[in-house]
Amino acid sequence: MDNLTAVLYGIDDMRLEQRPIPDISPEEVLIAMDSVGICGSDVHYLTKGRIGHFVVTKPMVIGHESAGVVAKVGSKVKNLTVGDRVAIEPGVPCYKCDHCKQGSYNLCPDMVFCATPPYDGNLTRYYKHAADFCFKLPDHVTMEEGALLEPLSVGVHACKRAGVSLGSRVLILGAGPIGLVTLLVAQSMGATEILITDLVQHRLDIAKELGATHTLLLTSDDTAEQVVDCVHHTMFEDPDISIDCCGAENSTRLAIFATRAGGVVVIVGMGLPEMKLPLFNALAREVDIRGVFRYCNDYAAALALVASGRVTVKRLVTHHFDIMETQKAFETAHSGTGGVIKVMIHVQPRNTNNPVKF
Amino acid sequence: MDNLTAVLYGIDDMRLEQRPIPDISPEEVLIAMDSVGICGSDVHYLTKGRIGHFVVTKPMVIGHESAGVVAKVGSKVKNLTVGDRVAIEPGVPCYKCDHCKQGSYNLCPDMVFCATPPYDGNLTRYYKHAADFCFKLPDHVTMEEGALLEPLSVGVHACKRAGVSLGSRVLILGAGPIGLVTLLVAQSMGATEILITDLVQHRLDIAKELGATHTLLLTSDDTAEQVVDCVHHTMFEDPDISIDCCGAENSTRLAIFATRAGGVVVIVGMGLPEMKLPLFNALAREVDIRGVFRYCNDYAAALALVASGRVTVKRLVTHHFDIMETQKAFETAHSGTGGVIKVMIHVQPRNTNNPVKF
Amino acid sequence: MDNLTAVLYGIDDMRLEQRPIPDISPEEVLIAMDSVGICGSDVHYLTKGRIGHFVVTKPMVIGHESAGVVAKVGSKVKNLTVGDRVAIEPGVPCYKCDHCKQGSYNLCPDMVFCATPPYDGNLTRYYKHAADFCFKLPDHVTMEEGALLEPLSVGVHACKRAGVSLGSRVLILGAGPIGLVTLLVAQSMGATEILITDLVQHRLDIAKELGATHTLLLTSDDTAEQVVDCVHHTMFEDPDISIDCCGAENSTRLAIFATRAGGVVVIVGMGLPEMKLPLFNALAREVDIRGVFRYCNDYAAALALVASGRVTVKRLVTHHFDIMETQKAFETAHSGTGGVIKVMIHVQPRNTNNPVKF
Amino acid sequence: MDNLTAVLYGIDDMRLEQRPIPDISPEEVLIAMDSVGICGSDVHYLTKGRIGHFVVTKPMVIGHESAGVVAKVGSKVKNLTVGDRVAIEPGVPCYKCDHCKQGSYNLCPDMVFCATPPYDGNLTRYYKHAADFCFKLPDHVTMEEGALLEPLSVGVHACKRAGVSLGSRVLILGAGPIGLVTLLVAQSMGATEILITDLVQHRLDIAKELGATHTLLLTSDDTAEQVVDCVHHTMFEDPDISIDCCGAENSTRLAIFATRAGGVVVIVGMGLPEMKLPLFNALAREVDIRGVFRYCNDYAAALALVASGRVTVKRLVTHHFDIMETQKAFETAHSGTGGVIKVMIHVQPRNTNNPVKF
Repeated sequence: MDNLTAVLYGIDDMRLEQRPIPDISPEEVLIAMDSVGICGSDVHYLTKGRIGHFVVTKPMVIGHESAGVVAKVGSKVKNLTVGDRVAIEPGVPCYKCDHCKQGSYNLCPDMVFCATPPYDGNLTRYYKHAADFCFKLPDHVTMEEGALLEPLSVGVHACKRAGVSLGSRVLILGAGPIGLVTLLVAQSMGATEILITDLVQHRLDIAKELGATHTLLLTSDDTAEQVVDCVHHTMFEDPDISIDCCGAENSTRLAIFATRAGGVVVIVGMGLPEMKLPLFNALAREVDIRGVFRYCNDYAAALALVASGRVTVKRLVTHHFDIMETQKAFETAHSGTGGVIKVMIHVQPRNTNNPVKF
Repeated sequence: MDNLTAVLYGIDDMRLEQRPIPDISPEEVLIAMDSVGICGSDVHYLTKGRIGHFVVTKPMVIGHESAGVVAKVGSKVKNLTVGDRVAIEPGVPCYKCDHCKQGSYNLCPDMVFCATPPYDGNLTRYYKHAADFCFKLPDHVTMEEGALLEPLSVGVHACKRAGVSLGSRVLILGAGPIGLVTLLVAQSMGATEILITDLVQHRLDIAKELGATHTLLLTSDDTAEQVVDCVHHTMFEDPDISIDCCGAENSTRLAIFATRAGGVVVIVGMGLPEMKLPLFNALAREVDIRGVFRYCNDYAAALALVASGRVTVKRLVTHHFDIMETQKAFETAHSGTGGVIKVMIHVQPRNTNNPVKF
Repeated sequence: MDNLTAVLYGIDDMRLEQRPIPDISPEEVLIAMDSVGICGSDVHYLTKGRIGHFVVTKPMVIGHESAGVVAKVGSKVKNLTVGDRVAIEPGVPCYKCDHCKQGSYNLCPDMVFCATPPYDGNLTRYYKHAADFCFKLPDHVTMEEGALLEPLSVGVHACKRAGVSLGSRVLILGAGPIGLVTLLVAQSMGATEILITDLVQHRLDIAKELGATHTLLLTSDDTAEQVVDCVHHTMFEDPDISIDCCGAENSTRLAIFATRAGGVVVIVGMGLPEMKLPLFNALAREVDIRGVFRYCNDYAAALALVASGRVTVKRLVTHHFDIMETQKAFETAHSGTGGVIKVMIHVQPRNTNNPVKF
Repeated sequence: MDNLTAVLYGIDDMRLEQRPIPDISPEEVLIAMDSVGICGSDVHYLTKGRIGHFVVTKPMVIGHESAGVVAKVGSKVKNLTVGDRVAIEPGVPCYKCDHCKQGSYNLCPDMVFCATPPYDGNLTRYYKHAADFCFKLPDHVTMEEGALLEPLSVGVHACKRAGVSLGSRVLILGAGPIGLVTLLVAQSMGATEILITDLVQHRLDIAKELGATHTLLLTSDDTAEQVVDCVHHTMFEDPDISIDCCGAENSTRLAIFATRAGGVVVIVGMGLPEMKLPLFNALAREVDIRGVFRYCNDYAAALALVASGRVTVKRLVTHHFDIMETQKAFETAHSGTGGVIKVMIHVQPRNTNNPVKF
């Protein structure tokens, strides 16, 4: 039986190959994969072979932004049946450590996470997963939207960590996929003013279309002081929340300088191990600095947002490829050209499993 | 100079009379009033002479949902100038007690609150107020909307107290003015499923129009068990938040029974001093019970919601009267007939101060 | 092999009988039980056959406040080895529902909890349990103290739910075992003024000894108004937290009346299904009402408190019995006489497993 | 009338001179000063002339850790009478900005704070202050303890910002006055394991005496990795909270590396404007970084801690001087030798105003 799978063998060495169809345990389901988005981290593993201390040391199946159709159900599974269309939350924790019991399973040290070494991802035809980390999609939600719940959940987690609330004034740095989903979520949580920045006008145009109240095109020559002045001038008052979706040093510095006393800087994008920061500025104004590591208890909200029509994530997908074109899909994602925001790989012909078409 | 004022002399004894134009202190402004909405509490004072331990013992100017135009500015006022169109947050606290310093000024025991005995309200031509409790309206926000920030702020406070967040499933009991603003705010904070109930179909129709995902017409014969079954059947899962905007015993009982374990019941409407409640049910499921007393630091968010176009409160105003028709306005509000939701009294001819017309 | 077990067959029908020694699964341990305290709920099941909707419909092993020694270890257990002295957190949740994933496993609907029908307790010689819900005791903590972590965890959960913090002024209603552990925990969390009430002077004497700053002897004739006056007179300011460890209607009413605006009433003891309450009083002053259902992520803190010497729980144990005397132990607990606070049943001769003697 | 006052004229230029006794407004009190402690910031202004953007540009009265006796009372003051012994919270905010109304008055941009340029401090015989920022001392609390409420409040604010709770494991970096008060407060809030570090053994000895569960003597040669290993080895588990009371780059780096995933790093000491930090390490483990700017609503808790005997701050005062010896007092504080922790300056002969002697 066909189980074509995209396997990362090393830097710039991705291969399509057959893998055995996995057996499932009583609390797992087998999923016929449908759609898998490409994330910046996937590209990073392909081109650099590592992210921080996560290093690809043996062949690893790539892919973790995904949705599929339940093909088989473990004996103890109650929440799903064969044929259910599901979004897959790609990390399964140990359930039993303090982090898990305290509701922070994203910090579980024994997390098994798709396409984070040494664990395989799910850009493959058949993949097994813990049933309780699969979210059944209503008929009117497409498989692509199911796959997009993954980055959307990052946005949800970022906005929750930031404490976005009614009337929040939010600065978002970077209008790539994560910046844009963060924009969508911040709006949904009641932010009434959102300024988003980028170096590329095209991305800002999409941000505007998605509801940003202000956009600001930066150039690499801008000093932090200039940008901060411009932000404060554009927004009615200083932002009480800044969410850095770049992770570059100057971006994080900007976030700190721009944020109102008592506010919060959340950093989603992760850059260099070491940064020179104006920490005194943050401390003396009690501007808190918080990181975002994946998501935790956020998939249900992300699905509710999409299913209720509160946010439209479709607009993020700019390119579609078949699994056979995986190589080209990654090249497109890596190039950053052609107006690319999110690249989607289809393991099944598109719309096969969508009652309502994309 | 004309300072026509609506004064409550006792039960069913409201009089229009001239009052002196007040002098202002350095941190106050004088406001030429424009629009004043009628609140249920205003009607209650007129018809009963009291609410709880607040008793009308001497003539009291009525009115506290209001907006006007700054006519004079105290010597130390920096945030406003003459001609500014402002919404008036009607309570001014002592600033110095523990409640005030801890950010809960709504609990200040020395609060001076419009039209709560013994303090005068502002259904009058000229009224003075602390400048820091006046909120300047942008040109595109009408005076009526400014007046509506008051009930909207109650909705904001209720939803904050309830902890409405992304993906919240909310049950709102009662589709009167407070139920409807709570609906608007809950949506804006990310609630993705909102079921609202009422005894009157007309109100549910408006709720539907304003975005309720489900409506449920109750009859006075329904048992709590029946309604709870129906709520659970209608919503995909049990509501994690119930907001009781009636305050009747059976309404509060219903809120407790309907709410998911670990959820929150917020009670806005205040009913009888004593109630028989299924407390064990709430305690053993850790369903918290929280009251709402006015609002606190909520006006800015309410204004941002309206100014950003995130919520439309216009729809709530069903009847308009001139200050000369105050008597009739109160009768209309009290009758509850004619599809009345919110009655607005105009101290100035409508739209006089609205650059963008209502 | 001997596995003498205390089994509740029905109302006032407790029997000691042999039961098979249980087999363990890979993530469980077998425990040679040492000490088991008697809880009010145990007595309630014996004398009434039910608590709320939990009904004893078939023979059930009693006991859930317990500690023992690991006798056998499942193949996947990493945190424990044979011979470890452990306190047993008596409830094991499903790990996979929303409550579990969000850090509120005490609300898990599939919780398996010792001696809550239909699940067996652990007043027995050999008992198996999930390894991750066993807490290894340091040598200087006795088995009795290990068993007492169970009620202490209730106190921890109550004080966390109440938000006890530095400088809190706390009113505790009831000086039974739960009132007393709540007192100990409230002190440890920084409460600087604690008034505790009871109908029995002897209990107040112990409370004083344990550090209560004020005690107040009530009589059943006192009106709520009188007691509230007395509380306010005794404490420097109104309590900002009241913790009701009785659960009687007049006790809960008193807690509401006595608490400062913006404060919290936590109710640990659970009384009648229905109560007549002065809800308006609570709502209009934003006094929150919160229940306590067991505990969640609280055992580690309870153990740290005891192990660090920050609290002394020994004083609570007033009576000791051998498992052979279970009948008499329950009679003593039920009688409430002889200065009884906490009754401890020893499955092993006392101090057998205590390197440092009790 | 004598109003001898310590005035800072510039770097290393402190002068004692007569100043007029201030007039009070209706909500102020005049205070006959008794005790004033020397803070690191006072020494910093004397030796450097500035802290961050706060620059001494004109003569400024020094001193802000203080207590005195009410000598005169404004016409509207209700909480105090002449003769009351009071601790003085040294900052008075505007009361009306968003920060003030939201309960974060320490972030008020218009804060008037003793001995922060351009505002005068209170090392003087007669000083006026807002009555609502004076805290009446019970008879058994000494004036010196009243003055020490200021640094103690910094510890309170730091521990609140850190979220110290029951069973917290806390790492404190630096055993100077702020490190030591933080230690005292962390204990009082339920921390069960506290490791404190310093470069000076003498300070660690005091920390041990005050209740630190572990001390660790560092040398300037230690690498962060070595110290982290040692911390993790010494404490049973990684600290969930690290409070940096030094503010040096290597100290902050250490705090980040040492803290458990999901934990909090609080930085009290403020060092250089720019720091090189391992931010990725913090972000990817969701270790939050929070500053501490003075205190807010913390004086009452600090006083309750001292008055209840829960903490003993006396031990911190190592040196006493008369106001006439101010120069020498500052030299002693600056030298850091002779086992100096806290230097106290007496404006009145010691114990003059202490019913219970120091």
